[in-house]
Amino acid sequence: MDISPPAGACAAPTPRTQVRRIAERGCYDREVIDGIIDAAWHCHVGFTAAGSVHCIPTACWRELDHLYIHGSNGSRLLKALADGAQVCVCITHIDGLVLARSAFHHSMNYRSVVIYGQFERVAEDVKPLALQHFMQRVGRGREHEARAPDPNELAATTILRISTAEAAAKIRIGGPLDDEADLALPVWSGVLPMGTQHFDPIRAADCSVEPPAYVDRWAKEALTSGFE
Amino acid sequence: MDISPPAGACAAPTPRTQVRRIAERGCYDREVIDGIIDAAWHCHVGFTAAGSVHCIPTACWRELDHLYIHGSNGSRLLKALADGAQVCVCITHIDGLVLARSAFHHSMNYRSVVIYGQFERVAEDVKPLALQHFMQRVGRGREHEARAPDPNELAATTILRISTAEAAAKIRIGGPLDDEADLALPVWSGVLPMGTQHFDPIRAADCSVEPPAYVDRWAKEALTSGFE
Repeated sequence: MDISPPAGACAAPTPRTQVRRIAERGCYDREVIDGIIDAAWHCHVGFTAAGSVHCIPTACWRELDHLYIHGSNGSRLLKALADGAQVCVCITHIDGLVLARSAFHHSMNYRSVVIYGQFERVAEDVKPLALQHFMQRVGRGREHEARAPDPNELAATTILRISTAEAAAKIRIGGPLDDEADLALPVWSGVLPMGTQHFDPIRAADCSVEPPAYVDRWAKEALTSGFE
Repeated sequence: MDISPPAGACAAPTPRTQVRRIAERGCYDREVIDGIIDAAWHCHVGFTAAGSVHCIPTACWRELDHLYIHGSNGSRLLKALADGAQVCVCITHIDGLVLARSAFHHSMNYRSVVIYGQFERVAEDVKPLALQHFMQRVGRGREHEARAPDPNELAATTILRISTAEAAAKIRIGGPLDDEADLALPVWSGVLPMGTQHFDPIRAADCSVEPPAYVDRWAKEALTSGFE
């Protein structure tokens, strides 16, 4: 077992993305960062507005080097972010509890990404395509099945995106790292793994349409947990 | 199917915890809030420090009306929070993708809690008991099995707690809510459920101790997804 992040670690893009606490868990590799983002359906956005700091969850998706979020024009979150607030976006997957012989060396396995920067508005003429990309993530082909947004629905929707350029991943994988002196203690040690699992689809009571392939596949799909 | 939060919703404790966007998803009931916190192993903490806003994941546990976090004295997160930074703590569980006939009415089922306030230091003499409570959450009895922290380890550990008094939950449950005009469209609609699942424990390669009951039970335990 090994706590090093995957190969390919490179330099932090900025001082504030430099992982300092247990620095060997930091990783600035684009593929690693993208993989952690792509395994998530939501992110948490930290920002300040109206004299308070906020930390709000919202659905997200990635396209190339941007993370996208969307919602109603009336959302306070989107209004504050569209006005150019400085933000820190975080995505975290918990992969397991790490049980060491000593209480002190208990830990968790996880994969997280933080992104610093500002959101920008996605232009009106690009919004339909951006929403199609999000729909494709839900199910390939669904962007042609579901009724597309009409002009009023499109106008009522704000889409924002943030560059993933200023980002860092932090990852812990592998088993416990006990002190040499504790190795002989009669204490169970190892990992209690966990991850996101898909369950059987639930068809709406008033729907008689047969499930498309992506619905049939849902519960069989691989877990989002990427590292053991 | 129903998107109302569980019975018992009461008033928001403060204006900034008042859920405004789709207000009927807001919930200020203590038991509901505690249940969402107790299903989580980690939270995200939003705060400002050194001229930037940050959003950092960290392990957490609840005891009565406080949420606890801990870590090394050297952690920048804990240093900033122990200095009394205003924070917003958020916990989110994603329970499913909601597929409607129209792209516009697609949604997610989720349970989230936000807590506003400031962390305070847990006093030195209370730290051992607070850490025991966290260990009990990992496995009942483990607080007596694992080697307890020695004075140096205790001194190197900061424990902070924040009152859960200024908190709000936001919850969506149930199926899609399509427009009347879309109900006859030949589009599969329903919920693709997901949740946190436990997997088989992995014993450390250098450990020959038989698994205690809480390790044996781990993979059989109920999912954290509370609402369908």
